Amino acid sequence: MQPDLLHDAVAIRVLNHLHARSPLVHCLTNDVVQTFTANVLLALNASPAMVVDPDEAAQFSAVADGLLINLGTLTQPQRDAMRAAITSARCHNTPWTLDPVAVGALTLRTDFAHEILALNPAAIRGNASEIRALAGESTGGRGVDTTDRAADALHAAITLARQYRTVVAVTGEVDYVTDGERTLAIRGGDPLMTRVVGTGCALSAVVAACCTLPGDRLENVAGACWIMKRAGAQAASRATGPGSFASAFLDALYGLNREVAQ
Amino acid sequence: MQPDLLHDAVAIRVLNHLHARSPLVHCLTNDVVQTFTANVLLALNASPAMVVDPDEAAQFSAVADGLLINLGTLTQPQRDAMRAAITSARCHNTPWTLDPVAVGALTLRTDFAHEILALNPAAIRGNASEIRALAGESTGGRGVDTTDRAADALHAAITLARQYRTVVAVTGEVDYVTDGERTLAIRGGDPLMTRVVGTGCALSAVVAACCTLPGDRLENVAGACWIMKRAGAQAASRATGPGSFASAFLDALYGLNREVAQ
Amino acid sequence: MQPDLLHDAVAIRVLNHLHARSPLVHCLTNDVVQTFTANVLLALNASPAMVVDPDEAAQFSAVADGLLINLGTLTQPQRDAMRAAITSARCHNTPWTLDPVAVGALTLRTDFAHEILALNPAAIRGNASEIRALAGESTGGRGVDTTDRAADALHAAITLARQYRTVVAVTGEVDYVTDGERTLAIRGGDPLMTRVVGTGCALSAVVAACCTLPGDRLENVAGACWIMKRAGAQAASRATGPGSFASAFLDALYGLNREVAQ
Repeated sequence: MQPDLLHDAVAIRVLNHLHARSPLVHCLTNDVVQTFTANVLLALNASPAMVVDPDEAAQFSAVADGLLINLGTLTQPQRDAMRAAITSARCHNTPWTLDPVAVGALTLRTDFAHEILALNPAAIRGNASEIRALAGESTGGRGVDTTDRAADALHAAITLARQYRTVVAVTGEVDYVTDGERTLAIRGGDPLMTRVVGTGCALSAVVAACCTLPGDRLENVAGACWIMKRAGAQAASRATGPGSFASAFLDALYGLNREVAQ
Repeated sequence: MQPDLLHDAVAIRVLNHLHARSPLVHCLTNDVVQTFTANVLLALNASPAMVVDPDEAAQFSAVADGLLINLGTLTQPQRDAMRAAITSARCHNTPWTLDPVAVGALTLRTDFAHEILALNPAAIRGNASEIRALAGESTGGRGVDTTDRAADALHAAITLARQYRTVVAVTGEVDYVTDGERTLAIRGGDPLMTRVVGTGCALSAVVAACCTLPGDRLENVAGACWIMKRAGAQAASRATGPGSFASAFLDALYGLNREVAQ
Repeated sequence: MQPDLLHDAVAIRVLNHLHARSPLVHCLTNDVVQTFTANVLLALNASPAMVVDPDEAAQFSAVADGLLINLGTLTQPQRDAMRAAITSARCHNTPWTLDPVAVGALTLRTDFAHEILALNPAAIRGNASEIRALAGESTGGRGVDTTDRAADALHAAITLARQYRTVVAVTGEVDYVTDGERTLAIRGGDPLMTRVVGTGCALSAVVAACCTLPGDRLENVAGACWIMKRAGAQAASRATGPGSFASAFLDALYGLNREVAQ
């Protein structure tokens, strides 16, 4: 199965929808990336909220437009909140997205990821090592970093997408997004994105936001990848290092909105 | 009751006091805004500290100058720490400030907010939906965002201020601060402030810092609002988006200090 | 014992090693500084990971190159995870670094710090009040801030280094690093570093990274201090306040890498 390149026009339609609808995204994510994740969503006119108590998480998932489950700093109490939120989201037909951070060798998150895979995620976004580990092809990367190229995980991504009837995004130098039948490729971005913590985790939040939009889910998820790569390339051209990059990246996301809104 | 506009001279006196006294503010706040909250206080020459274990929180509130209670990512263990900190603060006549984030439809935080309202907060700072929900007028906003204008919550703010003998700040495009008898209005700021996570939460921390200062508490809380609106307007004039805004905002707060200190 | 000034050539060798080896640093650190800590390590080409569940923390410390234990927002569950991670690190001869934030008057962290001191930290990094409190000379500073100058804690640092056969860095306007026999002094930096939350905590993470490098540990730890002071001075010369400073600081760390790599 040869990937097709995502057309800009398709991605811009996704961005337009995102801007117009301003989805409320419930983020159960890791401790390290909460601020950046919220700021990325806000820059795109989406509305982030982190509600973490199990009972409140269930109440909140019932009213949010989308839900993000990121396993980066999973604890047992957080696992309970995530279970409650996913259950509530499913009752309300709210799409939820899985970011299986560092799944593979670490027991708690790996067991939990396999448990919730059965609960119909709308999308899964991970790096090559994570997607391969989730599909049972390997035991994961080096810490939170991948040791594989995205293309090497394409087979695993397609397998997962078919088995769980979901959309899988495996991201890296080139991003690949597949629903098991069709695969889209997204180029762009910049290596500086790997020197700022949370760009991958924030992408998963944008995926969660885009899963709430009308239209084809494969294209919506691919649109999320395009948005981040486009802003990353713009920011890199203005930055002198990862500090100025992070700031320019949020500005670029915000400007992308305005560019397209015109 | 017609609000009066806060005079710049009054606000500058508050800023001078804040700069000179450098209060130590114990912040029990949500996971998403911890860094930004600390950096806002540091930029204003105040001294933030987050001590979260229940026993340590009680020990620390006994030595801090002020205490902030922000319910944004409330959990049951955090609730215990907050109870202990408030109790300790009251024993030592240390003023504490409540930020009732997203109070309304979410059970744990709403019940807890009503419980601690009885423990004499020096100030309450929230958006219109939060203040209306706290006063029993509505069931809250959309996630952490308000669905009301600040002016619409003025009645609720005055009711709360009278009932609990506290100062209530309801903030938005215009901020209103009331002690139930007199109301001050603060204009300024910029819509970009709503595209950066934590500007409202950080304002509550500055309110907590200003509640430690000598003089009229109504004016001190209004001064906190003025400081943030002034820095927000300055930063917006230099920013090209929310990333550069956040950075320029901290610079502006820091410069405000220096401007006034001269 | 008269401190020697650390030679630039020694520090640059440390930076080169750090850049070439890209150590994986397991950070069990406080809630306020997670993002900044990760971004500082990433800017220096090191690889941060925060794995916080007790079982996973033990699994992860077995594969990480170094471990950071920062007590800033210690809780009882976090204490369990830290114990498990340290035990695992020791089994695998992985060096671990202690940042005893605000040790002194707060019971949980003070007791725990004394408990784990016996578990052979490779290095300890603190401000003057923290190092004096750890050595039993005082009861700590004002919140997380020091009330002493670094030079005043030199005696305590030497005592600790000898007693626990470790390297102690006591940092402030001038940093001192001692192994109990020899002491190195590092000048530079800028007062703006104290107006950005997490510069001290991030230094401890860089210390943890440098403890994984070959060569003399005293020089490696002193090299970590030099890296931060050098980047701090560069950033201050470009910044107009703490917001632009934080961004310029990450850029400077990143540029330092590149400067030296050439």
